[in-house]
Amino acid sequence: MRFRAPQATVVEVFGELTQKGLNAGVPMTKGADGIWTATVGPVPPEIWRYAFRVDGVQVPDPSNPSFDSVAQGIAVNSMVEVPGDSPAFYDSRPVPHGEIRQVMYESKAMGVTRWVWIYTPPGYEKSTARYPVLYLLHGNGESVSGWIWNGRANIILDNLIADREARPMIVVMPQGHAIQGARVGPLESVPGETGMFSPKFPKDLLDDVLPLVERTYRVVADADHRAIAGLSMGGGQSLSIGMEHADTFHYVLGYSAAVGGNFLDIDHNFEHAFAHPEELNKKLKLLWFAIGKQDFIYEGNKAFADRLTARGIKFTFKQTEGEHVWRVWRNYLHETAPLLFQASK
Amino acid sequence: MRFRAPQATVVEVFGELTQKGLNAGVPMTKGADGIWTATVGPVPPEIWRYAFRVDGVQVPDPSNPSFDSVAQGIAVNSMVEVPGDSPAFYDSRPVPHGEIRQVMYESKAMGVTRWVWIYTPPGYEKSTARYPVLYLLHGNGESVSGWIWNGRANIILDNLIADREARPMIVVMPQGHAIQGARVGPLESVPGETGMFSPKFPKDLLDDVLPLVERTYRVVADADHRAIAGLSMGGGQSLSIGMEHADTFHYVLGYSAAVGGNFLDIDHNFEHAFAHPEELNKKLKLLWFAIGKQDFIYEGNKAFADRLTARGIKFTFKQTEGEHVWRVWRNYLHETAPLLFQASK
Repeated sequence: MRFRAPQATVVEVFGELTQKGLNAGVPMTKGADGIWTATVGPVPPEIWRYAFRVDGVQVPDPSNPSFDSVAQGIAVNSMVEVPGDSPAFYDSRPVPHGEIRQVMYESKAMGVTRWVWIYTPPGYEKSTARYPVLYLLHGNGESVSGWIWNGRANIILDNLIADREARPMIVVMPQGHAIQGARVGPLESVPGETGMFSPKFPKDLLDDVLPLVERTYRVVADADHRAIAGLSMGGGQSLSIGMEHADTFHYVLGYSAAVGGNFLDIDHNFEHAFAHPEELNKKLKLLWFAIGKQDFIYEGNKAFADRLTARGIKFTFKQTEGEHVWRVWRNYLHETAPLLFQASK
Repeated sequence: MRFRAPQATVVEVFGELTQKGLNAGVPMTKGADGIWTATVGPVPPEIWRYAFRVDGVQVPDPSNPSFDSVAQGIAVNSMVEVPGDSPAFYDSRPVPHGEIRQVMYESKAMGVTRWVWIYTPPGYEKSTARYPVLYLLHGNGESVSGWIWNGRANIILDNLIADREARPMIVVMPQGHAIQGARVGPLESVPGETGMFSPKFPKDLLDDVLPLVERTYRVVADADHRAIAGLSMGGGQSLSIGMEHADTFHYVLGYSAAVGGNFLDIDHNFEHAFAHPEELNKKLKLLWFAIGKQDFIYEGNKAFADRLTARGIKFTFKQTEGEHVWRVWRNYLHETAPLLFQASK
């Protein structure tokens, strides 16, 4: 690793790439030319995150055009792909590609203009078919672009669809925070709504985004053809919204979901589902969640699983390896997209 | 302005926003809490660019989610909008909105997978009409996202179309450098092709992007319904490609175009046009370019205009106020979009 900072006093590299945990800094050594250097790795094939700290200020790699996508903080991390011998499931191949559409809408729930990103599958433009829809939610501190630029959801779906492992589907990626979409138009926080789990989000999703999608695109507009999934904050949102609206979504998934502990309160966000477990079991085709054993929300997920068991709710809970990182979520999407909309084939 | 850097020795704020020129730093003063402060402005309503320098390293504003979009460097500048009393032409209003589509394709010319961004106008999805197409090129160091996130081309078009000042049109924004599109998939420079004005770009545009657009979208596929415009490097590309292919494009525009001087060589990139001025005059419906008098490419543009005059080529050349900044290019797009495709109404 190299970083040019002739006037700096202390420069470190840190992040997933260093294999030293997510925050521990690897000291860099200053050369006579003002270039700081350090050696990391070798590391296995993966898309890794890293950044520099220059006199205590976090800075992305100025020589790397690939950086992670954030909304509520600035882009301060870089991403680097270490390739393997053959293309990974998240590498683009010369197969038919879907499109990602950036759609602007006036959110009545939020009172601001917002963006939603929508993946239409390969061939959508020329087809007359109707498609099922996956609502796919990002994590805290990210934005509409997260699942595409960090998650490569479009490439993962393109590949699965080409290999006939997943059904062609539309994927809707809304803005999960109570702010206007990032980076276009005057940015504006909705008054009093800056943190995680805005109570306005479910209304925005159900009353603004979902009707917009269903009146604009060729979708199959029933619960057997709607799935909701998300990571971290978005996982808490997807589990809560999905389970509380089992007439709307029949596939409900959480990836390292922010439930339990200091996150989404289990007692107050699943009241209807917990009160009517038989109804939930009858309606849902899939209730699936997973988390890495090294994740800081691991205990919360276990507590949530215990509560579901106590209520007699049927679910799949996977405990995998991994921290709270994109590597884990790309794998979860790749594993679960083939499970969606199979009951209605 | 405030910036937290307790361990830093020198912190400055600089950029358009300071009104001190594009690079001069305004010194910040360190407080006991490690927060550096400085006062800038007042400044007129506009979208302004700025950044910090921390011990010589350029850093965007970590408390501002709006930053400029770059491809070959990292995002190191922030953008802030100073609102006026009423919405500006680049502010979103509750009018029908177009979509921006991120489209992945295999470029035969470049030998890599690339992205092109495509604006479809309000109502495209539900319409059966066919539309004219503007090919709109970004500048050096930027990427496919530049005209949307920095230029707000979609919002400018949405507003002009709502006000019936411009015709509904598709806007195609290709990647102007010989690299894979930014930030998705493994980034890869095409061997030997890293600088400005890749000779592979015209081939990518004409043989890969244009056929993709015309086989995928509902366009009117003739030269009366094709325009090409661009800023800076993209302006040099649009003038050269447009004038050299007057059977393909009948509207050709350059915004602060990188022609003349150290930039696109006038002698070797307009050979057919200069050799056949009468043919060009007969075919083109519009040849328009403009530049700010404070721009570092001003003299090059004047030399280009002189050459056109000497060859007897008809054109419009506007000399405006302004440096080499987005403020100028947003205004040029707003001024010229209403001029497009008027001959064929």
